[in-house]
Amino acid sequence: MTDYNFTHPVEVRYGDLDPQGHLNNAKYLTYFEQARIFYFEKLGLFTRDMSFLDIGVILADVHLTFKAPVLFGMEIEVGVRTTRLGNKSFTVEQAVIDNATGKLMCTGELVLVTYDYHTGQTIPIPSEWREKTSVFEALLNGEN
Amino acid sequence: MTDYNFTHPVEVRYGDLDPQGHLNNAKYLTYFEQARIFYFEKLGLFTRDMSFLDIGVILADVHLTFKAPVLFGMEIEVGVRTTRLGNKSFTVEQAVIDNATGKLMCTGELVLVTYDYHTGQTIPIPSEWREKTSVFEALLNGEN
Amino acid sequence: MTDYNFTHPVEVRYGDLDPQGHLNNAKYLTYFEQARIFYFEKLGLFTRDMSFLDIGVILADVHLTFKAPVLFGMEIEVGVRTTRLGNKSFTVEQAVIDNATGKLMCTGELVLVTYDYHTGQTIPIPSEWREKTSVFEALLNGEN
Amino acid sequence: MTDYNFTHPVEVRYGDLDPQGHLNNAKYLTYFEQARIFYFEKLGLFTRDMSFLDIGVILADVHLTFKAPVLFGMEIEVGVRTTRLGNKSFTVEQAVIDNATGKLMCTGELVLVTYDYHTGQTIPIPSEWREKTSVFEALLNGEN
Repeated sequence: MTDYNFTHPVEVRYGDLDPQGHLNNAKYLTYFEQARIFYFEKLGLFTRDMSFLDIGVILADVHLTFKAPVLFGMEIEVGVRTTRLGNKSFTVEQAVIDNATGKLMCTGELVLVTYDYHTGQTIPIPSEWREKTSVFEALLNGEN
Repeated sequence: MTDYNFTHPVEVRYGDLDPQGHLNNAKYLTYFEQARIFYFEKLGLFTRDMSFLDIGVILADVHLTFKAPVLFGMEIEVGVRTTRLGNKSFTVEQAVIDNATGKLMCTGELVLVTYDYHTGQTIPIPSEWREKTSVFEALLNGEN
Repeated sequence: MTDYNFTHPVEVRYGDLDPQGHLNNAKYLTYFEQARIFYFEKLGLFTRDMSFLDIGVILADVHLTFKAPVLFGMEIEVGVRTTRLGNKSFTVEQAVIDNATGKLMCTGELVLVTYDYHTGQTIPIPSEWREKTSVFEALLNGEN
Repeated sequence: MTDYNFTHPVEVRYGDLDPQGHLNNAKYLTYFEQARIFYFEKLGLFTRDMSFLDIGVILADVHLTFKAPVLFGMEIEVGVRTTRLGNKSFTVEQAVIDNATGKLMCTGELVLVTYDYHTGQTIPIPSEWREKTSVFEALLNGEN
């Protein structure tokens, strides 16, 4: 069981493949990024009338583990879940999941920092963001 | 001091930028990949008449730390060094370096696995590869 | 009315956007390419157990007209139709279509050449290919 | 002879290749775009302290002819020249040139429209732009 409350389907493009015939390693970050935006939208933290500059999160750290190659025609989903809400940063786990088998092809742990692009400063996670995420992920309030 | 025996210059492309106006996070892996190929070529482990299928290394694990945004027009180099030679895997450290300041904009630690595409099996690091890398990086023979 | 017998949906990715906040011009060719593969598959000219080297078509010429910018969140489809079957080449028209309005955001006319990768030679369009395409597109037999 | 007053070198990236082992067709537009920015900078029409939104040109039409595949390790340059200055649009010719042979691997003719992003309107080519381009390309004043 993959244990993700949120997944987003991604179609593997021919243009995502490299000469070895499978998904190029850089594209996993593109898939993760795409799924995170829809996850933020699902949580109500990002809306379509907002500028991308208003997203206000910076990717600080990524740890990817590649488990099996992703091929053209494979139906995949990208899971996203928040596992930690710190003061000015939070941790997100992501995975590329093969729908046919449920197998995790790649897993990732990412640390994101909340940021105000207008002042150019890191900021505490907004309380509304914290609340919505906690509820969605059933995180304990004091969890750190 | 960056302490890399090998660096490869990469030109930031307009097409590498995203709506936030800086280098998209996935492109760091593209830059790292490009520099690794030239590093393997420098070490004599890959030659231009080889097929990419003959490279015989699989990326198993990546840990990236983003330190500062890379902008268009910034002259950057990508450092590559091998820091560990195991039995069937080795560790490579990489960094995107701003030439003007020497600052590391992004650092990465990657684990690669040696692999025989013809048999579809992981293989011990070839002794010639081990030797050339050890000499270039001045790694101790027994280093693990 | 768009007059395409075949369309393929494509999700606009954040990673497809450029600093001007809309779909980067190079990505239209990526979208077209993706839709063509599914079109060839639909026509029975390409199957998933084939190598990409067996597709046997080379892109020789592209003419794109950009009509309106494509934005993130826009639901689009890519139309594909064959409009000419020559001896060793054929013409395909494509368009990026905004689903909400039916508006063509970008149109393209592409010339593809049939090619045998094993001999490295252009070849006449295989008769099976010609027949299947003619039927699907209701092209007249002698049409050129 | 290639007859370009301006060329910009581009390094072919492993990440630019597709499963057929050569440069993916969409990347030619990425290469052209990169060279155009440096061309506009050379002409003094774009400076590094400008926002990309200030470039003020929209790509309206592209015609590409693919002549030979570009491979990894090939040293290439991208030529750019303005061949027509209309009222609100101008025509640029571009080519991917193999340095070793001088051969044109891909040629393109592009129509760009001058645009004011602040008002959202097309505008006549600014006279300074017209003058600088005419001088650089030795275009006749009345040329259309």
